[in-house]
Amino acid sequence: MTHQNNSGEYTMETRTPVTVLGLGLMGQALAGALLGAGHPVTVWNRTPAKAGDLVARGARLAGSAEEAVAAGPLVIVCLSDYDAVRGLLGPLGGALGGRVLVNLTSGTSQEARETAEWAAGQAAAAYLDGAIMATPAAIGTDAVVVYSGPQAAFDRHEPALRSLGSGATYLGADHGLAALYDVAVLSLAWNVLNGYLQGAALLGAAGVDAVTFTPIALKGIETVNTWLPGYAKQIDEGAYPAYDSTLDTHVAAMNHLIHESEALGVNAELPRFVKALADRAIAGGRGGDGYAALVEQFRSPAGAGA
Amino acid sequence: MTHQNNSGEYTMETRTPVTVLGLGLMGQALAGALLGAGHPVTVWNRTPAKAGDLVARGARLAGSAEEAVAAGPLVIVCLSDYDAVRGLLGPLGGALGGRVLVNLTSGTSQEARETAEWAAGQAAAAYLDGAIMATPAAIGTDAVVVYSGPQAAFDRHEPALRSLGSGATYLGADHGLAALYDVAVLSLAWNVLNGYLQGAALLGAAGVDAVTFTPIALKGIETVNTWLPGYAKQIDEGAYPAYDSTLDTHVAAMNHLIHESEALGVNAELPRFVKALADRAIAGGRGGDGYAALVEQFRSPAGAGA
Repeated sequence: MTHQNNSGEYTMETRTPVTVLGLGLMGQALAGALLGAGHPVTVWNRTPAKAGDLVARGARLAGSAEEAVAAGPLVIVCLSDYDAVRGLLGPLGGALGGRVLVNLTSGTSQEARETAEWAAGQAAAAYLDGAIMATPAAIGTDAVVVYSGPQAAFDRHEPALRSLGSGATYLGADHGLAALYDVAVLSLAWNVLNGYLQGAALLGAAGVDAVTFTPIALKGIETVNTWLPGYAKQIDEGAYPAYDSTLDTHVAAMNHLIHESEALGVNAELPRFVKALADRAIAGGRGGDGYAALVEQFRSPAGAGA
Repeated sequence: MTHQNNSGEYTMETRTPVTVLGLGLMGQALAGALLGAGHPVTVWNRTPAKAGDLVARGARLAGSAEEAVAAGPLVIVCLSDYDAVRGLLGPLGGALGGRVLVNLTSGTSQEARETAEWAAGQAAAAYLDGAIMATPAAIGTDAVVVYSGPQAAFDRHEPALRSLGSGATYLGADHGLAALYDVAVLSLAWNVLNGYLQGAALLGAAGVDAVTFTPIALKGIETVNTWLPGYAKQIDEGAYPAYDSTLDTHVAAMNHLIHESEALGVNAELPRFVKALADRAIAGGRGGDGYAALVEQFRSPAGAGA
């Protein structure tokens, strides 16, 4: 395709051909987003029937994984786990030579680094490990997908990767970073959900339904979000002055939470866990500091005060 | 003050005189917001010097708490705790007769209900118990302040209460609800913060600073927020179909988190706690359900699977 740009010059606009291996719900969403952005897409799946909709939209179904990989310079793989990735890519060997391999399968940072070494041994042009922080429905819209590995490979293929999600983010050269960010954000998500469920259970025991609680809960989260950039600076600087409440003040309210949970007969384990962490920081002399001082508890294997 | 409205009629607009007892940082912010909204404000504090700025802005400083209470129909009290409230209001007795008392002091639902009974015994027109879910800096803007007690009293004084924060919300007749919402939202806040600190510690051990992690963390929270209204309906209906990931899938990723935390030498207590909750739900047959099924663990004192 050629386009005349604003200054009247002709520019060549090409869409990189992309291969997608693995057509689970996520793989199908990835291939669909690439098709939607105008890329020539070659797909392969162990069960070829899953390619039906994509082929109807213009994708080419390869007869083998080797043939799929041979179709272009950019190969995206998204399977159930790294064992499946090794099982699929292992026999391909040299077929990856000169190609950029982007692995969006969920795994650990160690698996990512091992796969990077393996790919280098197969003369792949580059290996990028990625993590998708979104549901299949968000792919092709504002999904956040994070990538780690050689920056040049990310930069070269950024247009294709950005078509998977406008939140495409390059993290750094260490191949393990995408997996680490993935579990860090999942950890945050589980804790948000647990805090919400604890609140829903507590209020539920007092006759308030979760639908009623939720708008207030969301405003509470919104308020906490405004604190995080300031806390981030404190964490990086290692000093935690209390610009809102001190840990001593927080612990007084944590006692209220435990008391209310016990009085209403709901589970008080999480409130006790939350308070024990703060108590440890206070025992370590942090009572007059702000909440971010607790990062020291999370840094130490047994807790900083233990 | 009179104003001509859009249809050319004259309307009488009056601002209720308000008394504010207790001029800590929060009490000063409350009185300041009322002054800013045009209310006649009478203040009292054990240490009168704290009233200086407010008096300069037009507040009247009463010579005693009794005199302050006598100044108008609406009395707002905001002290350090309920013991301080009892110490201050106890001797006032009948001075509260016919007035609406709004108590914004932090406490438990039981303290709120006891204070409501006491206020009724003093012939107060009504008692509203409130909780401020904001910092002093947000008072007078979009601060969320929740109120429980007789709805007629809230409705009558809603303009004054809304001048403290546009997020003024009436919760219900049970005087204990404001305190319960308060700890429920605080609990949520602590869990959001702990999840964030766990992630910051994990990534910090891999050389990523917290300022770099924070934008991705905020996007992760934003994604979780979009799930909460759907989870709320599931909680109220008691059925938790997995519309994104099943608990079985979550637990696989929780194992990654524990593994990464141990490998990087950061604290894995919270990841293990998070996984233990999910394991219990799965042992109870919830592995194919979505995350909201964990609410059952939070409802039962010892956990539903124990």
